[in-house]
Amino acid sequence: MIQVNTALFTDLYELTMAQGYWKYGLDSPSVFDMFFRRNPFRGGYAVFAGLKPLLESLENLSFKSEDLEWLERDGRFEPAFIKYLSDFSFRGDIWAVSEGELVFPHEPLIKVRGNLVEAQLIEGLILNIINFQSLIATKACRLKLSAAGSELMEFGLRRAQGPNGALSASRAAYLGGVSSSSNSLAARIFSFPASGTMAHSWIMAFPDELAAFRAYAELYPDSSVFLIDTFDTLGSGIRNAIKVGLELKARGKKIGVRLDSGDMDYLSRKVREELDRAGLEDAFIVASNELDETIIETMTKSGTPIDVWGVGTRLVTGGEDSSFTGVYKLSETEKNDGKELKKISVMKFSENPEKSTNPGAKNAWRLYDSDGLALADVISREDEILKKGENRVFYHPYLDMRRFEHRIGKEPRQLLHKVMENGRILPGLPDLETAREKREASLAEFDPSYLRLLNPHRYRVSLTEAMRNLKIETGEAFRV
Amino acid sequence: MIQVNTALFTDLYELTMAQGYWKYGLDSPSVFDMFFRRNPFRGGYAVFAGLKPLLESLENLSFKSEDLEWLERDGRFEPAFIKYLSDFSFRGDIWAVSEGELVFPHEPLIKVRGNLVEAQLIEGLILNIINFQSLIATKACRLKLSAAGSELMEFGLRRAQGPNGALSASRAAYLGGVSSSSNSLAARIFSFPASGTMAHSWIMAFPDELAAFRAYAELYPDSSVFLIDTFDTLGSGIRNAIKVGLELKARGKKIGVRLDSGDMDYLSRKVREELDRAGLEDAFIVASNELDETIIETMTKSGTPIDVWGVGTRLVTGGEDSSFTGVYKLSETEKNDGKELKKISVMKFSENPEKSTNPGAKNAWRLYDSDGLALADVISREDEILKKGENRVFYHPYLDMRRFEHRIGKEPRQLLHKVMENGRILPGLPDLETAREKREASLAEFDPSYLRLLNPHRYRVSLTEAMRNLKIETGEAFRV
Repeated sequence: MIQVNTALFTDLYELTMAQGYWKYGLDSPSVFDMFFRRNPFRGGYAVFAGLKPLLESLENLSFKSEDLEWLERDGRFEPAFIKYLSDFSFRGDIWAVSEGELVFPHEPLIKVRGNLVEAQLIEGLILNIINFQSLIATKACRLKLSAAGSELMEFGLRRAQGPNGALSASRAAYLGGVSSSSNSLAARIFSFPASGTMAHSWIMAFPDELAAFRAYAELYPDSSVFLIDTFDTLGSGIRNAIKVGLELKARGKKIGVRLDSGDMDYLSRKVREELDRAGLEDAFIVASNELDETIIETMTKSGTPIDVWGVGTRLVTGGEDSSFTGVYKLSETEKNDGKELKKISVMKFSENPEKSTNPGAKNAWRLYDSDGLALADVISREDEILKKGENRVFYHPYLDMRRFEHRIGKEPRQLLHKVMENGRILPGLPDLETAREKREASLAEFDPSYLRLLNPHRYRVSLTEAMRNLKIETGEAFRV
Repeated sequence: MIQVNTALFTDLYELTMAQGYWKYGLDSPSVFDMFFRRNPFRGGYAVFAGLKPLLESLENLSFKSEDLEWLERDGRFEPAFIKYLSDFSFRGDIWAVSEGELVFPHEPLIKVRGNLVEAQLIEGLILNIINFQSLIATKACRLKLSAAGSELMEFGLRRAQGPNGALSASRAAYLGGVSSSSNSLAARIFSFPASGTMAHSWIMAFPDELAAFRAYAELYPDSSVFLIDTFDTLGSGIRNAIKVGLELKARGKKIGVRLDSGDMDYLSRKVREELDRAGLEDAFIVASNELDETIIETMTKSGTPIDVWGVGTRLVTGGEDSSFTGVYKLSETEKNDGKELKKISVMKFSENPEKSTNPGAKNAWRLYDSDGLALADVISREDEILKKGENRVFYHPYLDMRRFEHRIGKEPRQLLHKVMENGRILPGLPDLETAREKREASLAEFDPSYLRLLNPHRYRVSLTEAMRNLKIETGEAFRV
């Protein structure tokens, strides 16, 4: 349910263009980059996610018989082209950043090298999967940092954007930092912990709140978390929870209580007091109800006694920032200059300079300062190697006057790795747990000022001199 | 890909609660309502959508062997309960509003009558599908009204929340008012028109822009829409489009041009002038680039010459409002009062009065004024009938002093229809085209003041006297 295996999951124009490339003999070796333009959530970074489901989808992509029949009925496609599509599979090579890596605007996250038709047809699939999972992994990472060590549970199934939206979001949220999900199917598919408490309907199905809590404790003595706001949090909920909590304590068990409405700050302090006074110091408090990282950070900094945060809607949809700005652009192809096919770098201009693209096949590098912290990312030409000991000048991606000189003191790290060859996934593709560890390791490379929720320190992404020269050259050549 | 057939697509707590109901003999006839609390997009209404995919999913819902194995491994579930789940299917009855109907906060959109376990287990599925599709159908409807008759194309595949997010969004967007989608798979599955233009990469794959346009026109003389901003919209794009447009005109064909960056208002006027001056009065202008209903309404009111709007990201995700606030609450069940099982109405209190629920099995009605326009929606008890000629008093859902008297002059319309019986879809469930017509018909019942994009006239949803009395009674009985 998280993968796509029909190649018809694509914008119609990819198919009409593909027929053109095929017909005009333009299906030549090309390079596309996937990159993004703006950090989500007004933050300073994004967490790259979605690579494994993407590659697994690409490996199995084909046009099904009902897809081909639909294309036939459409009328725009020639029988010979439909025949060609019936044999279609993606046979290109892909380089990508590792899942869990912190990434920044303008640098290549995925580089696709393939023939123009196959590389173009997969644009929608790449963007759909990577954009959404990176959005949610980034949100989860921000939530995790805001909770400063407290645990996070993902509760978003019912407000997610469709069934697959829920599953993809659960995966990306786990990658980004939550400890568990309420989504049972996601937990099964991705092999991570499922968690949950109880709903108001549980309490309403019993003669009274106390009976409801007792029945639950009887059945789940090791995982009793009582929802205490059905009638009156302080008036009845916490009192009944304490009664049953003491009964469980006598059996050597501990409880949790969940707050789901009202003022979380006030209620959590009052509830903590009551629990402690009753001798339930080991009881924990779970909070849920339209939480996001700003609320959690504020409460955490003011010393709230909340132990576990349940985050739903705003985590699995991104809340106010519900899309990631990834794009996929042609950077190199072969063109006939009248005599022969020649490999050339291409770029897109734009009315807005920040929307123009960087030409040519690329690599990306992370540079470090003398403390081993990330200093800047650099976009180079594909065949350039950056090495410790070199003196280099790096340029702003589009502002003319901005540059910096740097003596590379620590070995730079290549960010792109080859992950697919001739359409097959290469061995060693990291799994979800490894991606979680990668996210931890990547975070540890950054000064906290870059990770601030709002107004973060802006991390530099620069061009090597060779890349900048290619950009100037390509731009001049394409003046119309 | 748009349906779910595994019952494990549910929050874990539904399963732990279900085991409790099963074990404690509480799996008794119950009623749940799905309703929502707040109109999305700061608007005055929502468009109900998602019913058909929901019911089709419910009809085929079961636990698969890998689901049951996962539950076994979890450790919280008894073998006898897992055995019970292995035979699980939904066998209840469902009443629902028709897809495409305009709906309002607090009124029941779906009423589920079933045993407690089955009715509880499907909560997540109902909310996931209905919340998302209603969000997007509402957005599409707002866009459609803002465009005042101009055409809308949905372009959101690459920014949608996962593959199914894209497919569900395309369906809901079509239901809500767009004419076509770029998503080929959605167009195939739901049998509606696919549309598209060309990407910047098409132009970059040719020696120059003119050659790219000409090649496209050669291949697609009947659907040539040229993207004119790759290099310079007014400097080169429109000039090359006109050259090729005149060539096509000589063959009796017309063209379109697409603007994708820069100031749409300025560029569309300039481009219109150039097209008209060249004698291409029949050429149409397509605009795309982060559009939403506010931008489209402003430009439409100022007389922009844009003929077709391509809407992507903000349509398929909802933009800043990325979730619909639908909830699913128990309203009636049977409880043991010490002697026997008795049917009783239940409700949830809350610290916030607008979050308390309405008890008991319900119906919903639309009342009309003497002009035949919608006057108010009314929530009644299930067995009440509202009839023309009656004098009635209707009450605000939670504000004590608000009420209105009304002599029912036109026959009220029942909003809920039985759509599923014993777990099977009843004959006559409307298809997608019928839902589109329903949306048109429903819109026509409302004074335009209710449909305004911002600060709309607030539509009344009231309680009958019997419903209000039940609410007061239930509330008093549940005082703790």
